Amino acid sequence: MRPYVFVNVAMSADGKISTKERRQVKISGKNDFLRVDRIKAESDAVMVGIGTVLADNPSLTVKSQQLRDERKREGKDEDPVRVVIDSHARTPPDADILRKGTGTRIIAVSAAAPQERVEHLKKVANVVVAGSESVDLPEVLAILYQHGVRRLMVEGGGTLIWSLISQGLVDAMYTYIGSMVIGGRDAPTPADGEGFLHESDFIRLQLSEAEPMDDGLLVRWDVRIIR
Amino acid sequence: MRPYVFVNVAMSADGKISTKERRQVKISGKNDFLRVDRIKAESDAVMVGIGTVLADNPSLTVKSQQLRDERKREGKDEDPVRVVIDSHARTPPDADILRKGTGTRIIAVSAAAPQERVEHLKKVANVVVAGSESVDLPEVLAILYQHGVRRLMVEGGGTLIWSLISQGLVDAMYTYIGSMVIGGRDAPTPADGEGFLHESDFIRLQLSEAEPMDDGLLVRWDVRIIR
Ligand SMILES: NC(=O)c1ccc[n+]([C@@H]2O[C@H](COP(=O)([O-])OP(=O)(O)OC[C@H]3O[C@@H](n4cnc5c(N)ncnc54)[C@H](OP(=O)(O)O)[C@@H]3O)[C@@H](O)[C@H]2O)c1
Ligand SMILES: NC(=O)c1ccc[n+]([C@@H]2O[C@H](COP(=O)([O-])OP(=O)(O)OC[C@H]3O[C@@H](n4cnc5c(N)ncnc54)[C@H](OP(=O)(O)O)[C@@H]3O)[C@@H](O)[C@H]2O)c1
Repeated sequence: MRPYVFVNVAMSADGKISTKERRQVKISGKNDFLRVDRIKAESDAVMVGIGTVLADNPSLTVKSQQLRDERKREGKDEDPVRVVIDSHARTPPDADILRKGTGTRIIAVSAAAPQERVEHLKKVANVVVAGSESVDLPEVLAILYQHGVRRLMVEGGGTLIWSLISQGLVDAMYTYIGSMVIGGRDAPTPADGEGFLHESDFIRLQLSEAEPMDDGLLVRWDVRIIR
Repeated sequence: MRPYVFVNVAMSADGKISTKERRQVKISGKNDFLRVDRIKAESDAVMVGIGTVLADNPSLTVKSQQLRDERKREGKDEDPVRVVIDSHARTPPDADILRKGTGTRIIAVSAAAPQERVEHLKKVANVVVAGSESVDLPEVLAILYQHGVRRLMVEGGGTLIWSLISQGLVDAMYTYIGSMVIGGRDAPTPADGEGFLHESDFIRLQLSEAEPMDDGLLVRWDVRIIR
C-alpha cells in the first residue's frame, strides 16, 4: 500500500524548472503561490529530493496562518510531514526544512550513507534506511503509508519526479506553466533522469484541467493507470 | 525589416520534443496535425535547423490537397518556401525537403561551409551565405523579407528556436502539449542552446490562448516586445 501521490511543479513555457545553474527562479505568481500553499496544507506529507534541498533550501512549511490554524483544529501538526530523499545523508543539519516549522521530518537514506552523517541527522530528524545504493522509493512510500500518510505531495526536483513517474508511483501532476522562456539544454525540467527511449514506454496522462492563472497556465494531468 | 516569425512545436507534458536519442515521436494527434498543416499553408516560408533535417528528414510540405489548391488559386506555389539553417552545408542532397513538394528551397549556410558541399547543394536548392561560423539569423530573415516572405513558421528544433528567441526574432509561439511524460535530462526541449542565467534576461510571453486539442492542450503565447 502506498499514499496517493501527486507532483506539483512550475515550469517555463519551454519546460524548464530553473536555470542551468539550478538557481531558483520565480516562475509563477501570487495566485499560484496561494494554490500551492493550500494543496500543501491538504497533504499529509511533502517530499523533495536532496538536489532541491541543496539548490533551494526550501522549508516546505505551510505559509498561511489560516491554513495552519485549520490543520491544528483538525488535530494535525501545522506543517505536513516533510520528507527528503537523500541516499548519502547529505542534508545539511541546519537546512531550513529541519530548522523551520513544526512536525515530523523524515530523511530517507540508503544503506550506502556514511554512518557518521546518519548519526548527525538522527539528532534532528527521523532517518529511514531504504535501498542499497540509492533510495528505494516504493519502500519509502510503504513506510509513509504505515505512518498514516495517505496523500503525498512531491515538490521536485526533476530527478526525483522522473524516478517516481517512471516507476509508476505517481497518480497526478500539477504543472504551472509560466509566461517566460528560460532555455538551456542543461537546465532542469519536470522529469529528468534517463528518460524513455520508446513510445510504448511513455507514461500516458489524461488532461483533467487547464486554467489561466496569474500570467500563465495551471494544468492538471492524471496519470493513466494501465494494469 | 524581417518577416513576422512564429514558432510551432509539440512537447510532452514534461517539456520534451523528442527522446534523448532524438528519435521523432508522436506527441500530438489528428486535430493538431490538421491545425499545423493549415498554419503552414498560411505561411510564406517554413524554417528548420539542420539538426531536425538529419534527425527527422521532414518534407515540410502542405499535406491537404484542398489547402494546396487554395494556395495555387492565390497564385502561390503549393508549398511555402522551405528554409534550412545549416552552417556547414550538411543537408543531404537527397533529403525529403529537397525531393518532395514544389516551390523554392533555401539552404542558409555560413562562410565556413565546405565549398564542395555548397556546390552540390546549389544544384538542388538556393544557397544563401550568411554569417562566418554559424548562420547569421537576422541576415537570413532580412533576405527572406527581401524575397517577399512576410510570415515565417519555424518548426524547430530546440537549438534553432533558442537562437531565434534569445536574439529577439520571434513574435509568437504555439506549443502543443501532449498527454505523456517522456523524461530525460538529455532529451531535446523547445528551447535548448545555452539558456539564460538571470531572470532579468528571460524572454517574457503573454498567454493568448489555451484550448484542449486531441488528448492534450494547444497553447499560444505572444512574445512581449520590450523596446
Ligand atoms: N520549479 C519547481 O517547481 C521546482 C521544484 C523543485 C526543484 N526545482 C529545481 O530542481 C533542481 C533540483 O532538481 P534535481 O533533479 O537536481 O534534484 P532532486 O530531484 O531534488 O534530487 C535528486 C537527488 O535525489 C537523490 N535520490 C536518492 N534516491 C533517489 C531515487 N531513487 N530517485 C531519484 N533521486 C534519488 C539523488 O541524489 P543522491 O544520490 O545524492 O541521494 C538525486 O540526485 C533545482 O534547480 C531546483 O531549483 C524546481
Ligand atoms: N516536437 C517537435 O515539434 C519537433 C520539431 C522539430 C524538431 N524536433 C526534434 O528536435 C531535434 C533536433 O533539434 P536540434 O536542436 O538538435 O536541431 P535544430 O535546432 O533543428 O538545428 C540546430 C543546428 O542548426 C545549425 N545552426 C546554424 N546556425 C545556427 C544558429 N545561428 N542558431 C542555431 N542553430 C544554428 C547548427 O548546426 P551546424 O553548426 O552544423 O549548422 C545547430 O546545431 C530532433 O530530435 C527532432 O526530432 C521536434
